[in-house]
Amino acid sequence: MAMAKGPQAFPRTEYLRRLSAVKAEMERRQINALLVNTSADITYLTGYTAKSGYVPEALIISLKDEEPTFVTRRCDAPGAVHQMFFDSSRVIGYPEALIANPNTDGYDAIIDFLHDDGLTKGGVGIESRSLRPEAIEKFRTRMPEATFVDFSKAVAWIRLTKSDLEIDVMREASAITDAGMLRAVEVIRPGVREADAAAEIVSTLIRGANGKPGTDLSHFLLCASPRSATPHIRWAEDVFRDGSQVNLEFSGVRHGYTSGLMRTLSIGKPSEQLRRVHEGEVAGLEAALAAVKPGATCADVASAFNKTLKKHGFEKETRCGYAQGIEWLEPTASLKEDDLTVLRPNMTFHLMLGNWIDEDFGYVISESFRVTESGAETFSRLPRVIFEI
Amino acid sequence: MAMAKGPQAFPRTEYLRRLSAVKAEMERRQINALLVNTSADITYLTGYTAKSGYVPEALIISLKDEEPTFVTRRCDAPGAVHQMFFDSSRVIGYPEALIANPNTDGYDAIIDFLHDDGLTKGGVGIESRSLRPEAIEKFRTRMPEATFVDFSKAVAWIRLTKSDLEIDVMREASAITDAGMLRAVEVIRPGVREADAAAEIVSTLIRGANGKPGTDLSHFLLCASPRSATPHIRWAEDVFRDGSQVNLEFSGVRHGYTSGLMRTLSIGKPSEQLRRVHEGEVAGLEAALAAVKPGATCADVASAFNKTLKKHGFEKETRCGYAQGIEWLEPTASLKEDDLTVLRPNMTFHLMLGNWIDEDFGYVISESFRVTESGAETFSRLPRVIFEI
Repeated sequence: MAMAKGPQAFPRTEYLRRLSAVKAEMERRQINALLVNTSADITYLTGYTAKSGYVPEALIISLKDEEPTFVTRRCDAPGAVHQMFFDSSRVIGYPEALIANPNTDGYDAIIDFLHDDGLTKGGVGIESRSLRPEAIEKFRTRMPEATFVDFSKAVAWIRLTKSDLEIDVMREASAITDAGMLRAVEVIRPGVREADAAAEIVSTLIRGANGKPGTDLSHFLLCASPRSATPHIRWAEDVFRDGSQVNLEFSGVRHGYTSGLMRTLSIGKPSEQLRRVHEGEVAGLEAALAAVKPGATCADVASAFNKTLKKHGFEKETRCGYAQGIEWLEPTASLKEDDLTVLRPNMTFHLMLGNWIDEDFGYVISESFRVTESGAETFSRLPRVIFEI
Repeated sequence: MAMAKGPQAFPRTEYLRRLSAVKAEMERRQINALLVNTSADITYLTGYTAKSGYVPEALIISLKDEEPTFVTRRCDAPGAVHQMFFDSSRVIGYPEALIANPNTDGYDAIIDFLHDDGLTKGGVGIESRSLRPEAIEKFRTRMPEATFVDFSKAVAWIRLTKSDLEIDVMREASAITDAGMLRAVEVIRPGVREADAAAEIVSTLIRGANGKPGTDLSHFLLCASPRSATPHIRWAEDVFRDGSQVNLEFSGVRHGYTSGLMRTLSIGKPSEQLRRVHEGEVAGLEAALAAVKPGATCADVASAFNKTLKKHGFEKETRCGYAQGIEWLEPTASLKEDDLTVLRPNMTFHLMLGNWIDEDFGYVISESFRVTESGAETFSRLPRVIFEI
């Protein structure tokens, strides 16, 4: 019996639209074949979200074919058949003997496929940013007639502008994020272990919201006093205390898409320092959102934030945010004063205003938003407050 | 005020022992300085588990210094000070302006440090497997007097043999894994959504066991009918049904260490096919464990499994397992018939007997174990059964 197609997150026409955009870029760069091996790009172009990318795999897009081909290890082929939108015959499993094999590996199988399909002459696009040096070397050696073109980030730039269908999915993810944050406000209490609060929040992110479950785990960070100045610790083996500050950053996930949110909680009255930072940051956040419109640049948004925050007597060192979509962080546009990316409708960002000020004090707040025809739409429905416990 | 050191997972002597082993290998390979940028290797050598490795960072080990130096972005320095065992002055934060900067990046800061510290002449080890090609190119260009030696996997080979302290931590992780599996058996019922069961299991993995919480999220996979032939799907938006088979693979985490476990559940009586595979696999599992002893090879273990399974009329394509420790999969020894790695006491493996037989049928069972002075010690206390719901 064959593996059946699973329910698809998007209609076929949506995936074909995405592929058309990639093919147009391939034509512009004069390449006939493109090897996509960045997991988020594969998700974008196929619907596949299984966690097989730790061994060689590639989605191969050819200008001569409407549908792409996925070459993966044999045991992952049924999952690809189940999740990917295209015809099952286009999922090709390579032998398991190539895993952890010092001589030949999955890239050899990928190159064999390209040879068989006549795709090794002329321009071949590779995402060299996601390839190990020895894989690139193997491509060059075994495909001497190919002209390699670095396609790193090119699909990510296409991903930056979402379709309305993608925006709907990001709204679903955001509803889950909000549910997780409200659960945090319920369970964080003095004497509670950080891990027990994390367990409750993460389980809420998986259960989901509005009848739609979370479909994956993503970024999850809980940095409580005395760790409020650290941005990237999961949680500690500690308990919350009276007077503790808790910085949270996480997202629900729908079909690979995230919608991140940061909020600061305070057990007891916030300190004067915390209140002052919060006031400046919220004013900066509002100024940043007010600067969002088609035609403005990422720099304009960052500048509006930074100027406003400065008026309140603070500065933020880290960038103000980044493009967001599949797998949290898209490696393209940043909300930074030197990023001149022009905003267009349905670009989505995480306006990430975490500010790790001193070695023992940091504060976080953020909003995920899309650029609309005239401004910004934030996805979260939660107030921009310090949640007091 | 300065960030305080947090509680350390291991005593200083343990980290110095690990560093000594790395330095001996550096001497053998004639390198004065080593740049470690694989996250699991950094965890091993310092205790650091924060999630900052998505931007450039490096642990720099020099033969002339007892303690290493960590170069990371400024906002991650407090977390490193908090978690790393060594002196706070050895955590160096580079400017945030280098993040998402097209001209200079964190590798420039790392190279600057190496120049300042006189480490750019002679042998310099790099983990090229974890570096982007453009980073390697930058090292070569900016350090023309260095002789680069690829140190990829060298620290991982040292990690393969655990200390007794590490084994204790893996036992703690395993107790959490077992608690998660028992929770799965409680919550998986017909009509329950897969996501709701996943939420319960994951929250158990975070709450932990025996008063010791899980310290991180790891691998988590729930592949239920009709997806029993897929190994790497998180979970689906489906509900369990009478007659469903559920394949589970996950681990609790303690201080970065995992102890993976797979079990198959059956809602209702297992099918004849499932029972027959299970019988063959358990016999193979026992034969594999019986083959484990110091001096035997990975190949011996795999061969014992494969021969026994074959007697029961089945074959397994994928390898029988791999070295395990920090972050699930260590990229060194595999339990494969062509892997001649010699087993030594306290090497740890995930004997991973997942068998994705047909496109619509797979089965999973596994044990995490250490090599003892005379055989194998498995970490899980759970029976090797198909859990019937």
